[in-house]
Amino acid sequence: MDKIKNIGVLTSGGDAPGMNAAIRAVVRAAIYYELQVTGILRGYEGLINGDFISMDRKSVANIIQRGGTILKTARSDDFRTKQGRQKAYEQLKANQIDALIVIGGDGTFTGANLFVQEFNFPVIGLPGTIDNDLAGTDFTIGYDTAINTVINAVDKIRDTAESHDRLFIVEVMGRDSGLIALRSGIGAGAEAILIPEAKTGIDGLVTRLEHGRKDKASKIVIVAEGDDAGGAFKVGEVLREKFPSYDIRVSVLGHIQRGGKPTCMDRVLASRFGVAAVEGLIQGKSGEMIGQVNREIRFTPFGQAIKHINAEEISPAWLKLVEILSL
Amino acid sequence: MDKIKNIGVLTSGGDAPGMNAAIRAVVRAAIYYELQVTGILRGYEGLINGDFISMDRKSVANIIQRGGTILKTARSDDFRTKQGRQKAYEQLKANQIDALIVIGGDGTFTGANLFVQEFNFPVIGLPGTIDNDLAGTDFTIGYDTAINTVINAVDKIRDTAESHDRLFIVEVMGRDSGLIALRSGIGAGAEAILIPEAKTGIDGLVTRLEHGRKDKASKIVIVAEGDDAGGAFKVGEVLREKFPSYDIRVSVLGHIQRGGKPTCMDRVLASRFGVAAVEGLIQGKSGEMIGQVNREIRFTPFGQAIKHINAEEISPAWLKLVEILSL
Amino acid sequence: MDKIKNIGVLTSGGDAPGMNAAIRAVVRAAIYYELQVTGILRGYEGLINGDFISMDRKSVANIIQRGGTILKTARSDDFRTKQGRQKAYEQLKANQIDALIVIGGDGTFTGANLFVQEFNFPVIGLPGTIDNDLAGTDFTIGYDTAINTVINAVDKIRDTAESHDRLFIVEVMGRDSGLIALRSGIGAGAEAILIPEAKTGIDGLVTRLEHGRKDKASKIVIVAEGDDAGGAFKVGEVLREKFPSYDIRVSVLGHIQRGGKPTCMDRVLASRFGVAAVEGLIQGKSGEMIGQVNREIRFTPFGQAIKHINAEEISPAWLKLVEILSL
Amino acid sequence: MDKIKNIGVLTSGGDAPGMNAAIRAVVRAAIYYELQVTGILRGYEGLINGDFISMDRKSVANIIQRGGTILKTARSDDFRTKQGRQKAYEQLKANQIDALIVIGGDGTFTGANLFVQEFNFPVIGLPGTIDNDLAGTDFTIGYDTAINTVINAVDKIRDTAESHDRLFIVEVMGRDSGLIALRSGIGAGAEAILIPEAKTGIDGLVTRLEHGRKDKASKIVIVAEGDDAGGAFKVGEVLREKFPSYDIRVSVLGHIQRGGKPTCMDRVLASRFGVAAVEGLIQGKSGEMIGQVNREIRFTPFGQAIKHINAEEISPAWLKLVEILSL
Repeated sequence: MDKIKNIGVLTSGGDAPGMNAAIRAVVRAAIYYELQVTGILRGYEGLINGDFISMDRKSVANIIQRGGTILKTARSDDFRTKQGRQKAYEQLKANQIDALIVIGGDGTFTGANLFVQEFNFPVIGLPGTIDNDLAGTDFTIGYDTAINTVINAVDKIRDTAESHDRLFIVEVMGRDSGLIALRSGIGAGAEAILIPEAKTGIDGLVTRLEHGRKDKASKIVIVAEGDDAGGAFKVGEVLREKFPSYDIRVSVLGHIQRGGKPTCMDRVLASRFGVAAVEGLIQGKSGEMIGQVNREIRFTPFGQAIKHINAEEISPAWLKLVEILSL
Repeated sequence: MDKIKNIGVLTSGGDAPGMNAAIRAVVRAAIYYELQVTGILRGYEGLINGDFISMDRKSVANIIQRGGTILKTARSDDFRTKQGRQKAYEQLKANQIDALIVIGGDGTFTGANLFVQEFNFPVIGLPGTIDNDLAGTDFTIGYDTAINTVINAVDKIRDTAESHDRLFIVEVMGRDSGLIALRSGIGAGAEAILIPEAKTGIDGLVTRLEHGRKDKASKIVIVAEGDDAGGAFKVGEVLREKFPSYDIRVSVLGHIQRGGKPTCMDRVLASRFGVAAVEGLIQGKSGEMIGQVNREIRFTPFGQAIKHINAEEISPAWLKLVEILSL
Repeated sequence: MDKIKNIGVLTSGGDAPGMNAAIRAVVRAAIYYELQVTGILRGYEGLINGDFISMDRKSVANIIQRGGTILKTARSDDFRTKQGRQKAYEQLKANQIDALIVIGGDGTFTGANLFVQEFNFPVIGLPGTIDNDLAGTDFTIGYDTAINTVINAVDKIRDTAESHDRLFIVEVMGRDSGLIALRSGIGAGAEAILIPEAKTGIDGLVTRLEHGRKDKASKIVIVAEGDDAGGAFKVGEVLREKFPSYDIRVSVLGHIQRGGKPTCMDRVLASRFGVAAVEGLIQGKSGEMIGQVNREIRFTPFGQAIKHINAEEISPAWLKLVEILSL
Repeated sequence: MDKIKNIGVLTSGGDAPGMNAAIRAVVRAAIYYELQVTGILRGYEGLINGDFISMDRKSVANIIQRGGTILKTARSDDFRTKQGRQKAYEQLKANQIDALIVIGGDGTFTGANLFVQEFNFPVIGLPGTIDNDLAGTDFTIGYDTAINTVINAVDKIRDTAESHDRLFIVEVMGRDSGLIALRSGIGAGAEAILIPEAKTGIDGLVTRLEHGRKDKASKIVIVAEGDDAGGAFKVGEVLREKFPSYDIRVSVLGHIQRGGKPTCMDRVLASRFGVAAVEGLIQGKSGEMIGQVNREIRFTPFGQAIKHINAEEISPAWLKLVEILSL
């Protein structure tokens, strides 16, 4: 492989707070190592269409603290086709881009994996998703911000719950993974946490909510959107039947969970990843996602990263912790 | 009327940030004027049941910054009956409480009005509701905090909207009043604001959203829950038909709008009201809601206050302002 | 006077949160009324140097929520000289700018006043300063954000004060005016507030701090930087002598008070002012500052606005309020 | 050793956000395992004086989100003496307290270490300090909140720095350790970070600050209070000499860094530690600090924990990261 001279960078899939910090780090590191860096707008869609912008130090000034992504993001159907990827490859060649850094989640890396195999083109992935559902990294960029957004919202809801002695059922993001629910549920002091990884027994839930209701009538139940009990509204219906006299309310936090200023942890993680990704490309790495495991940088092949095994926290030990704390 | 010696204070109806600051001010002012002060739990329900606690300086230490209400709140069906109010009166007499300060909204003052008329018992009302829908005060306690909560949430949503070039329809509180929607919509830089006070023409909305879409594809529409177009989900449906290729999302902010730390304005307003309410009772006032009009304290009879005329901002001038700003 | 076709806009003096919202409103209103709008960088300095940028709808997209000013700001010695102002006038003429909107405080308006008199050039001022020290408006842009920044900081300090039973002396901005101190002191629940407008009697302060110390040992004293007692460190020294066994700490909040996302009130105020300023110029107004008095838009000649009479709140009634609340 | 029946819990040293979450977890876990739990007020001082309160589930309701410590904290000179510790031991015996959980930093554990050795009394330590300066844990309770408080403050300062093209020197906590400065400096996008662990060369700093000043005149330098260059004011003086025309400002963040709502990470960490500490005592552990290393719970003898070796981040790799990012 020839020496890399020009790195392309894009964000893809759902946006996550800290993506801008990652872009900034990629650009700064590229400049540090005397490489050019090209911003690609709107993810793979912009890659196929050649929506490229040249980036320098000033392009990324004053963005580390901003949510969203200045490169914009999109989901691309075209990149799922061989023709789409072929077109993307031609755009890269036509623009003298030698290597690619893609910031996103499992969909992003699935595409990147095919692309690397088909064109032998150097690509490094950065885990940018609030879901924290990638193998090969303890944390993804955006997860820490999202769980803080959740607990700040639940803190507000608890003010109301306490004042009215209400039971609130709060739905948080997580179609396949209960990680946001679990961690934010512990952080918010929830009385119960329902996640896809653990079968929800309504009877157990009812017992738990009855416990100590005389002492502390206000309760918070956190429900991951993908829980088998069927989302917060469904849980609300069931509980209203079980507790006819209880004042039960449902709140779906929704899209606020994706935005906002990134936390310090997400900014530092993204900064570290961005620099290490550039260094990885220089060292000849490709087809791998960068991650942080036990505080060290680690590279994991795309094929393994997308296997969604980040289940450490959904262990019996963590579930017991929830049980003790929500006493 | 005999000299007042013991003031009862309660919060009633939906909780609002700043209620604790108001309670604190009532307690401190009562002590300053060498009166006793009794906290009544859970609004009129607790009044009827005699859930009373004696309060002193320490009872209200370190609460000015807390959302919700330490006295808890409830809606009371019993107080709507003559018998309920009779029982409440007897509880007050039995506990040597000479006067009452009630913090709440129009339901609270409707009950208080009947109570004053029936028992000639001194009652002063404090406007505590996020809706700002009472005549006789420019601002109610909680309104400023609620609109700040909304714009902080919409700022987060805009990060995502911008990153994906999406149209977001955000529903905010306001069943009968568009005040939260109007002010937070201006503050959030919304591209359109739908309120109950103005008929929503879907055609006009479509024109407005088409305008400049090429330049700036991300848009925010704020919808008051009581808008005639039928809430955010309904608006979303209609717009999806009109813009089949537009990525349209709906977010209902819900109960987070009631909680949270009060803003400085709400803390100062509540503090001022609490002190003035005690002073009003000492001066022999009753049957009136305290308010702030043009920065001055003003008292308004309950019967007028609950007429929901706080329509200054829903004037043609404000609607034109929205039109200009959302260009 | 000829019809205005091109409005110049600048920010000058200390930056204040909400200035960007004001710039946005000026630009949008100019476009609405089919005028051109030119951004002038770095206040009067950029005006003299001809640092001009053409602005359109997109120039002000997504800035309503940002602190600081995208036009940057500066203090200009040159504009204090006749020659400097002459050069500024020539730059305006050379660039076909017919009218000027200046966003700033008393220094800004002092310069603008001379400029209007010397060149009969249309200028409208917008009050943008965290100090709220201008006559002719109840609130200046940035004040509400600044006092919220202060109370959020003091809320944090109170956590520590409570945990350690400490006395904290917190210095806030306000060289000539105690308005930030007064309002944030009430909002933060301070035990004492020291402001330039009221002579600080150390003996009275000592008595006040001794009061109830057994019940509630943690105390917060808010000091305006311009207080006659000499700033927080000086007050700390004096109190350490009076209370040798008290754990007394000093904190100077400093520059964090100028930055941050504007509150909803500041965004709405700035938006309203920006639109009304453009409308004022179109109507032929000049040499006046726009303000909000009793919720209505009002224009005040520069000469009166800079007289610093916004003393409503520094009245005996407010000082008594502080005394009652800090019991 | 007899079976433990009653656990005492105290907080000691400087308060840290998350201490309340830790207390809550200790209480809940004790109840879960059918033990009694006694709160000890004001750290070792209260232990010596017998300031004990019985705690139950309700004592710790609604505190997980609060900064500071409901048990209050203090530094105790008496506990440094043999007699003081003897008295403490007698108080524990007299009150049938069988084991102790102490939440604090190195001073706390130094005292605990002596106490365990002298009286063979079971004590487990929880790392609660914003400084993150203990060996045996990747993170201490409060560190994550503190660095987020710093970056939020610096974000505000950057608004002002940007608007005025200023250089700001911001002093953060860290007398012996640069960890807060390092991580918050990266998170805040600082142009330079001065820490005690790395010798500050003023010449290098000047070169770094001159770099790219034409493009981006606003700069932030983060200084740990214990840096060898002598604190922010001293650095400011030196830089003012080197850059006479630069507008240089100094801001000392001070005590706001200790307070505020804990972040999700601190709440989860504290919750986990609190439960594991109770379980550790039940299993017969003593004389050890609980920590989290590589996401696993680990116990470290007090003697090793207080050796301040948490220097992973003050490695050449991290310093190079700073250099690249602040380009």
